[in-house]
Amino acid sequence: MAYILQVDFNMEGPFGSEMAESFADLAESINQEEGFIWKIWTEDSEAKEAGGIYLFETKEAAQKYLAMHTERLKGFGIEPVNGNVFEVNEPLTAINSWAG
Amino acid sequence: MAYILQVDFNMEGPFGSEMAESFADLAESINQEEGFIWKIWTEDSEAKEAGGIYLFETKEAAQKYLAMHTERLKGFGIEPVNGNVFEVNEPLTAINSWAG
Repeated sequence: MAYILQVDFNMEGPFGSEMAESFADLAESINQEEGFIWKIWTEDSEAKEAGGIYLFETKEAAQKYLAMHTERLKGFGIEPVNGNVFEVNEPLTAINSWAG
Repeated sequence: MAYILQVDFNMEGPFGSEMAESFADLAESINQEEGFIWKIWTEDSEAKEAGGIYLFETKEAAQKYLAMHTERLKGFGIEPVNGNVFEVNEPLTAINSWAG
């Protein structure tokens, strides 16, 4: 069983390669979070939105991370944060080529 | 460059293994969609929500699929549909273990 956390919010920037440089240390730290498996970093420089799709081992770990991350983003002046935790339906996901 | 489409909506069910049986043919058909790479099927039987995280080759393919899928869900009596397309920030995503 694995759990998806989807997060998105409005952000003024940076985006693209500048975003990658600014948040590399944060990305490294996320690898240490409890129950964390992977994160896909998402961005839309035109709409000025960013976020992430995360996979966690448990629902509790995903919810705990979301609460911490929401507070951290608030510290960057970013709110509100849209966040949702879902269970992965594994038989259907297996049909659609996901190797993750 | 790859693009994430995140979709979620309220749904009465089915969930879990019954959902997997009901939507296996739909999952097979999604593999034929233009620009489609993979889908993670998401569900929350307590909150009565479901959706998906998709990866597409282009922003246009993701947007076209979202428009079609929103109409299809409407045909199942499901609306509104929350849908967002994001570019993947590849350098940051590479740090966070995603092998997809």
